[in-house]
Amino acid sequence: MSVIVHRRDLDFLLHELLDLDRLFATARYDGLDRPMVTGLLDTAQAIAEQHYLPLAASLDANEPRFVDGRAEIMPEVGEALRAYADAGLIAAGFDTDAGGLQLPYTVTVAMNGMFNAANIGIANYAMLTTANANMLNAFGTDAQKQVFLPPMLEGRWLGTMCLSEPQAGSSLSDIRTQAHPIGDNRYRISGTKMWISGGDHDLSENIVHMVLAKIPGGPAGVKGISLFLVPKYRVGADGKPGESNNIALAGLNHKMGHRGTTNCLLNFGEDGDCIGELIGEPHNGLRYMFHMMNEARISVGHGAVMSALSGYLHAFDYACGRTQGRLPRDKDPETPQVPIIEHADVRRMLMAQKAAVEGGLSLIFHCAMLVDLKKVTEDEEERSRIGLLLELLTPIAKSWPSEHCLEANKLAIQVFGGYGYTRDYPVERLYRDNRLNHIHEGTYAIHGIDLLGRKVRMQDGEALRLLVSDILQTIDGVRADDGLDAESRHLRAAVDQLQSTTAQVLACADLSRGLANATLYLDAFGHVVIAWMWLRQALEAQKRLRPLPGENAFYAGKIAACRYFFRYELPKAVRQLELVASLDETCLDLSPDQLLAR
Amino acid sequence: MSVIVHRRDLDFLLHELLDLDRLFATARYDGLDRPMVTGLLDTAQAIAEQHYLPLAASLDANEPRFVDGRAEIMPEVGEALRAYADAGLIAAGFDTDAGGLQLPYTVTVAMNGMFNAANIGIANYAMLTTANANMLNAFGTDAQKQVFLPPMLEGRWLGTMCLSEPQAGSSLSDIRTQAHPIGDNRYRISGTKMWISGGDHDLSENIVHMVLAKIPGGPAGVKGISLFLVPKYRVGADGKPGESNNIALAGLNHKMGHRGTTNCLLNFGEDGDCIGELIGEPHNGLRYMFHMMNEARISVGHGAVMSALSGYLHAFDYACGRTQGRLPRDKDPETPQVPIIEHADVRRMLMAQKAAVEGGLSLIFHCAMLVDLKKVTEDEEERSRIGLLLELLTPIAKSWPSEHCLEANKLAIQVFGGYGYTRDYPVERLYRDNRLNHIHEGTYAIHGIDLLGRKVRMQDGEALRLLVSDILQTIDGVRADDGLDAESRHLRAAVDQLQSTTAQVLACADLSRGLANATLYLDAFGHVVIAWMWLRQALEAQKRLRPLPGENAFYAGKIAACRYFFRYELPKAVRQLELVASLDETCLDLSPDQLLAR
Repeated sequence: MSVIVHRRDLDFLLHELLDLDRLFATARYDGLDRPMVTGLLDTAQAIAEQHYLPLAASLDANEPRFVDGRAEIMPEVGEALRAYADAGLIAAGFDTDAGGLQLPYTVTVAMNGMFNAANIGIANYAMLTTANANMLNAFGTDAQKQVFLPPMLEGRWLGTMCLSEPQAGSSLSDIRTQAHPIGDNRYRISGTKMWISGGDHDLSENIVHMVLAKIPGGPAGVKGISLFLVPKYRVGADGKPGESNNIALAGLNHKMGHRGTTNCLLNFGEDGDCIGELIGEPHNGLRYMFHMMNEARISVGHGAVMSALSGYLHAFDYACGRTQGRLPRDKDPETPQVPIIEHADVRRMLMAQKAAVEGGLSLIFHCAMLVDLKKVTEDEEERSRIGLLLELLTPIAKSWPSEHCLEANKLAIQVFGGYGYTRDYPVERLYRDNRLNHIHEGTYAIHGIDLLGRKVRMQDGEALRLLVSDILQTIDGVRADDGLDAESRHLRAAVDQLQSTTAQVLACADLSRGLANATLYLDAFGHVVIAWMWLRQALEAQKRLRPLPGENAFYAGKIAACRYFFRYELPKAVRQLELVASLDETCLDLSPDQLLAR
Repeated sequence: MSVIVHRRDLDFLLHELLDLDRLFATARYDGLDRPMVTGLLDTAQAIAEQHYLPLAASLDANEPRFVDGRAEIMPEVGEALRAYADAGLIAAGFDTDAGGLQLPYTVTVAMNGMFNAANIGIANYAMLTTANANMLNAFGTDAQKQVFLPPMLEGRWLGTMCLSEPQAGSSLSDIRTQAHPIGDNRYRISGTKMWISGGDHDLSENIVHMVLAKIPGGPAGVKGISLFLVPKYRVGADGKPGESNNIALAGLNHKMGHRGTTNCLLNFGEDGDCIGELIGEPHNGLRYMFHMMNEARISVGHGAVMSALSGYLHAFDYACGRTQGRLPRDKDPETPQVPIIEHADVRRMLMAQKAAVEGGLSLIFHCAMLVDLKKVTEDEEERSRIGLLLELLTPIAKSWPSEHCLEANKLAIQVFGGYGYTRDYPVERLYRDNRLNHIHEGTYAIHGIDLLGRKVRMQDGEALRLLVSDILQTIDGVRADDGLDAESRHLRAAVDQLQSTTAQVLACADLSRGLANATLYLDAFGHVVIAWMWLRQALEAQKRLRPLPGENAFYAGKIAACRYFFRYELPKAVRQLELVASLDETCLDLSPDQLLAR
């Protein structure tokens, strides 16, 4: 059985729950059908299992090294990326005109998930290249696209995103990298960029950096940030990489996980000789960078889910095979030991993982479908509705899995016991990998402030109203004989509480106080959304229950997981929302010397 | 400022909260006084900071290696252990007759905590040696003690505990290692032991293993387990280590954390030539092993607290120094960035760490004092009362920190942001180290079953009644003008609910169902106990508040942390107890193919 994907669940989510087929009826995806999607998923799974998965442990143990000013990395990583690129996967979401496969985002997400689960350290290089190419495709000139897009989509050149600097991580308004115009849309770049994933390596012929920098004389803060395309090697008239562009690798960050991805401190223009091209208009860099940000953030949440899914699949297999101890009633040491999946707490830990993983995955695909529907919908009002929902759900899709799927990875280790704590099993690595997702692409706290400080306030709360309306529609669809009465009542109450809590915070004139518990609000909001996802899954499963034993187990499991989430998890959100609504200032009021007087 | 101990808090716990001085009035600790204790703590801190702390990162990066059948380890580890032993710290808790310092357990715990925080990988060797020597001292013959005790207490020989085997981790009744009598209290040992910390190394002249094994013909299960002393090198008539005792290092386990401690697979008697001496009577091995088990488990919980304390101290310092972003009201990018401790969510994360760490530490010292009071109390009834309280509280002291102080370590990383995820800062290592505590010395689930299946049922619930009586005494001591009314009411309600939940589970005839959510019961029980600890700390702080600004900050911080715990944490226990009382079977009823139908 695969340890990187649960294909039955993927089919359920894509086809039974979310009705992917409706995309095939649109002009954009005309010609695509379900067997083709299945074939694509088969291909992706085969490449991920053959080229990515076998390297996971060795790449983790042999992280990239800083040698003679360069990052050296296991050469097999390049071969794996080649297999991925050769299958057209970097370009999978691009239009056929641009050399892509023009696949729905939902399908590319499903495919990429397997690579994330198999080896996130390698998958990052391709993910960043796709994101980079997307931005270039959206805002670059035709000439820029002609030179840079084909080699990136073919995987011969890889891409990065250069936002952070040592003094500016979460606070991008404080970046200091400068870009001095030298005419002809070209700029001399100078500055230091930090946390650059894929910032240096020997895996590709060239590296294309998308760099945020300030043009002297521009506005202060984020309004003065521009975007530049800065290749590692300058590109000659023949379109080939030529002389070095004066970008120095100043150091590698050695991380707890994601070890296969080089993470770099880069000095641009130490000798004053680093040239970049402006992308789009000056001072619009952040807007361009955020153009694909919803998708990038959904991807991070998805990565968190997939690390947890792989942990869960490993833990399930182990629990079925490992024998240890006896059931509470049976203390006779002469009887054989039982598989540990027979123990109540092991089942609880597996169920907790299932609820987090399948709940999180359903939200990721729900959001991915919104991305696709927004693209194909011709109705302006509907497009705006979908856009608002995406704005609201993105911080949740990014954050909820980074917290609760990390917890799932923790439980996967626990199922393995002492073995899980060793590097002989992959669960500790998956746990280390997943810890990053809480931090990058906006920390948990930043997304809390985004959600409570901005998203639920947009258009006088329209986004939240739209979401609540969608949730109530699900609740209204519950029939008396579904056996899901209690769940639908609980969800209804939780939604009411979410709305009243939101109103109470928004009525608070003191912004600091109102936002003091934004992280808890984000967490609780996420629980309400995941509860909704579980009710939807359970309803769908209920509808499909048949007297066929095999399939029944799958659907019965969905219904049980829904019950689990409502009984074991949703009440936590209720309590947290009460706390948020109380506008508690216990932490806000603290002075540092009260925290720690020495 | 130290990153391994918070001396002001230690003084508060030992002297203001727990009144350590009352031990000095007893015959056993006559001559000891507060300045001496302070001096001992100074000494311990100095050794830990000079010899243990500087090796923490390098030892983590250079874990022991398997070379030519031996475990090779950084030689500086031996030097650090020598400094510890030379200060008399292995023997610190032993009677002066036995060559020890005859210090209260509470004091040795306080000292050892600093070594745990500084470098748990080294501290483990000494901790295991002390535990081993304790067992030998309690159950060995005079001859055995004469040969083995002095070199262990001097740190020239180190000790281990050999319980687990590859097929028997949590289920000790299933061990297979055999001991064949060859006369004169000597046995031929054969079998494989797994997870043996300190099982092989070149740090000492000899290694003394305490090995659980079965004498053929004995009773099945745990009743047939005996305890043997098995040295790595046989000891000659001159008391010196001589020929090899046929114990082969079969492999090293490579762990996520605790990397400095060798963790071994050992084959005893591969060539039929491994000789051990029986300790005590046959078939009583488990009882001997569990003799010091309460203390060993308190130590594990304490280790979890100390990893979190160190993470907290690092995070606090970083939050005071690192500038990033601006407050919600101030969006002018021309103003300077603020120290991140000004951000509400950073304060919340620091407060959560403080609440877990100082709450956990107060429970550890509460239990340590019970160990000491039990030793010096002459009243039989009081001794039995203390014994029952210790039995009840030990699974909590072991488990609560392993869960909630791990969470604190997670938050320490989050305070550091991307930096915290790198190995350039110690917080990710402390997080990895702490993940073990959930697993060893009995998993979280095992302690849940111990608590709900055994401890609260002992003597018809007497232990729980005694604890509740202690808690109610604290509540009764709250006066109207303490400002802690709400907290005392909440604690009262939580205790009532704990009692009624316990009664509901105990009334359930179906043992499997009753124990199905034992882990949640353990967790919630822990929260109630820690809430009690916080109320006690807040009451003590309230009493000592003075109009002196410096001291006020310390006490005000204690009161704030109490409020935090009651508002942000205790309600979680209320919800969990409701769930346990409902005897929910959602997870128990699952079949494996419902969990994962493929």
